[in-house]
Amino acid sequence: MKFNEQGLIPAVIQDQDGGRVLMMGWMDSEALHRTQTTGRVWFWSRSRQEYWRKGDTSGHRQYVRGIEVDCDEDTLLIQVEQVGAACHTGTRSCFDGRQLEVVTDGD
Amino acid sequence: MKFNEQGLIPAVIQDQDGGRVLMMGWMDSEALHRTQTTGRVWFWSRSRQEYWRKGDTSGHRQYVRGIEVDCDEDTLLIQVEQVGAACHTGTRSCFDGRQLEVVTDGD
Repeated sequence: MKFNEQGLIPAVIQDQDGGRVLMMGWMDSEALHRTQTTGRVWFWSRSRQEYWRKGDTSGHRQYVRGIEVDCDEDTLLIQVEQVGAACHTGTRSCFDGRQLEVVTDGD
Repeated sequence: MKFNEQGLIPAVIQDQDGGRVLMMGWMDSEALHRTQTTGRVWFWSRSRQEYWRKGDTSGHRQYVRGIEVDCDEDTLLIQVEQVGAACHTGTRSCFDGRQLEVVTDGD
């Protein structure tokens, strides 16, 4: 696995039920190890500089169902069973709030 | 939108047909602008240090169908119509190649 200059790798979290992308978080090798071995998703919080097990304060746990690695080995895709809302704003997905305008007639 | 210290934001690319996550790429503000206004997905290549319109060499174009922004405004989720394989290895998704072992009995 290739971690970046801060020792981190991005992890895309996908709802195994329906396929909605829920959020993206960052893991260091220890957070990834914990995620692989405990059945729960762990992140490294860049703002708080600490490990963070999803759901510990909110109850909105993420149970690991699979971890896939991309061709460059620098991004993870994690299938989860999500309890409640993945987003701290209360929405199911962190991407539920805002859409950008797009043109869709590309050639 | 919040770009990182290199002026980049990660963009998760999702197949609108079936919901498979295809790849993750990086955009600067210009690549995002082009993606919003041309109907095709543009990235900034960190290795080649140049703009890259997906499909120009491979033919495997990505037509933009929607762009969502996450709650922190530092990650994009882009729904696309994917032509052929998204991955340079020939697989539909860049995440098709390798799975990590996981334990799934978390509490």
